[in-house]
Amino acid sequence: MIPLSKAEAYVLECALPMSSTEQVGLWESLGRVLATDISSDMNMPPFDKSAVDGYACRKEDLDANLKVVEVIPAGQMANMEITQGLCSKIMTGAPVPKGANCVIMVEEVEEVDEQTIRFTGKYSKTNIAIFAEDVKEGDKVLSKGVIIEPQHIAILSAVGVSNVTVSVRPKVSILVTGDELVEVSEKPNVGQIRNSNGHQLYSQVIRSGAIPVYIGIVDDTESATETAIVNALSQSDIVVLTGGVSMGDFDYVPKVLNGLGIDIKFQTIAVQPGKPTLFGVKGKQLVFGLPGNPVSSLFQFDLLVRTAILRLMGGSSAQRELLKMPIAHDYKRKRSERLALVPAKVNGNGEVELLSYHGSAHIFALAQAQLMVIVPIGVSQLKKGDLVNVRSV
Amino acid sequence: MIPLSKAEAYVLECALPMSSTEQVGLWESLGRVLATDISSDMNMPPFDKSAVDGYACRKEDLDANLKVVEVIPAGQMANMEITQGLCSKIMTGAPVPKGANCVIMVEEVEEVDEQTIRFTGKYSKTNIAIFAEDVKEGDKVLSKGVIIEPQHIAILSAVGVSNVTVSVRPKVSILVTGDELVEVSEKPNVGQIRNSNGHQLYSQVIRSGAIPVYIGIVDDTESATETAIVNALSQSDIVVLTGGVSMGDFDYVPKVLNGLGIDIKFQTIAVQPGKPTLFGVKGKQLVFGLPGNPVSSLFQFDLLVRTAILRLMGGSSAQRELLKMPIAHDYKRKRSERLALVPAKVNGNGEVELLSYHGSAHIFALAQAQLMVIVPIGVSQLKKGDLVNVRSV
Repeated sequence: MIPLSKAEAYVLECALPMSSTEQVGLWESLGRVLATDISSDMNMPPFDKSAVDGYACRKEDLDANLKVVEVIPAGQMANMEITQGLCSKIMTGAPVPKGANCVIMVEEVEEVDEQTIRFTGKYSKTNIAIFAEDVKEGDKVLSKGVIIEPQHIAILSAVGVSNVTVSVRPKVSILVTGDELVEVSEKPNVGQIRNSNGHQLYSQVIRSGAIPVYIGIVDDTESATETAIVNALSQSDIVVLTGGVSMGDFDYVPKVLNGLGIDIKFQTIAVQPGKPTLFGVKGKQLVFGLPGNPVSSLFQFDLLVRTAILRLMGGSSAQRELLKMPIAHDYKRKRSERLALVPAKVNGNGEVELLSYHGSAHIFALAQAQLMVIVPIGVSQLKKGDLVNVRSV
Repeated sequence: MIPLSKAEAYVLECALPMSSTEQVGLWESLGRVLATDISSDMNMPPFDKSAVDGYACRKEDLDANLKVVEVIPAGQMANMEITQGLCSKIMTGAPVPKGANCVIMVEEVEEVDEQTIRFTGKYSKTNIAIFAEDVKEGDKVLSKGVIIEPQHIAILSAVGVSNVTVSVRPKVSILVTGDELVEVSEKPNVGQIRNSNGHQLYSQVIRSGAIPVYIGIVDDTESATETAIVNALSQSDIVVLTGGVSMGDFDYVPKVLNGLGIDIKFQTIAVQPGKPTLFGVKGKQLVFGLPGNPVSSLFQFDLLVRTAILRLMGGSSAQRELLKMPIAHDYKRKRSERLALVPAKVNGNGEVELLSYHGSAHIFALAQAQLMVIVPIGVSQLKKGDLVNVRSV
């Protein structure tokens, strides 16, 4: 049994970035991992730019009436220079004319006559966005490894990247073991339940940005397990299994993996839920054996498999951030030799509220789960208001 | 100028859930809004189930040797009843045999001979998941309005929902105004910049679960603006414009909207950035006029347009949660008559760290943004360690 931090370190060490990249259109790049650094091909702003609708003029002339010499719309350069007593009407985003050192806002101006205005406000700032103050031509604006979010789409657009070089998405096979399982469309017989893990994991693979390969329910026999794993390895970068890794008579997974030359790095983690979690490596291929209980497999996928997927894509932040948040109530547990992962939601005060669940099979308790609270080894109680480590899921 | 809370209330009041639904496959339902309540068609667990690999027996017999009468794999019912001095080897997930009241773990058992075992541990719990303790047949397991996440896919699977009834996705048109704008693939001339808002908004529409309709750059003339808005209204439930809503000579949007019979609910919000934000309604159709600056439009979309999209789909939590998090450093601002939205990231200690940006055009500052910190009206300073309201974006 190894601590979670050690398990995470193994995954980070063994999951090697794939070198393949591909080009996709700007819109298709959302959610993908950027595979090259991006530099700006221009200065931003590309000129001294008015930040407001108003009148470009000289600060030193603000006490007197000003003569309006032209109107400067966005997208056009000024024709007239501003000298003493002159101003130009200017729109937000338009280039500030030569000679002007401030823009007074239209809301703080009075029209004296058709060609003359007067400043009625109190001067506080120039309202000019200075040439190249945001970024200079050639500056790096995005780093390789970024997971592309809407704000990155804006940055790519601003610097003219209409085709984006992104990492290739790894293929992740999903196998579930357990002779008690039937598929979703079937009605379980006595002693049976439906396969929920396979579909949950399928959607987690999608969410992580990889390509799922659904292999489905595998018979609890050694030969069927071996055939299915060989098949999965032949068509994917990562193989995710659930069940079959514990202490039961029909838990063939570790034996089969050993037989296939897979180097098993760990088989149990000091976490609750999710203790019987296996990780193995063969060359660049990774195998995860997750627990059969759906709460455990949900959390362990998020902690370990998602990390591996992001690493394979060269993602610079492969692990989710831990946020500190106040807990809404006291918490106690009897034993504290494992790290606890507790499903939680946010209450109306912005505090984290633990969800009660009785066991790792109790997936229904997760209908409202938004977060996962991490209770470290050795910690058996928390007081209302304590700051706890919280992970989004 | 109205407070943000009032603006949000207008949007929630005017965005009416669409009644149309459609059926999609289980995998395709990820990220969609569930349109019906879901009940369980079975008890879970459907039988008293072993939570571990071990031996099913009677607690009162644990001091003596136990004779093993059969092996019960998962998926099969037991044949033998457990009476005094007997036990059955049992796998995780298998039905507990009649007469047994506990399962002892295989790790705490010694084999006396081929047919006999002895308990070597200390009794603490039954290790039995009781019939129907998670959910009873007919119980509601998911409520209409849930945004379907991987854990909900698990729940749908468990109760046999292979075709999911979800809300239809609204269509959202995107128009950008501004004569200084050119498309991403073009090199801007003097006085011009590229259109970044249109593509950022496109990806935000996708992220919100709606269908984007890209109309693109609209000329800064009254007739072009009107034609484009009429076109957008003819093919979408929500129209999102950027620019053209401020005080400039070429800001035709409010005038055109009035002419088209759109009831403008508000035109400025006491927020920074994003003050010139317009919201209008015509029947069930909604129009948002967002500021032209990309930081403002990014934030205002997330605050208002995303909320409207989720409401149209009947989403039960249309607004993002506010989380309380400690701030990593002191913060000061000069004026506090508007609510400030400050881009931020999480630091290594789980605290929120504000990103420095100089103005709402400074989209490059958002490369690292993960969160938005809300500084209320009237608050002009924060101390390191203070709990602040944080929104994910």
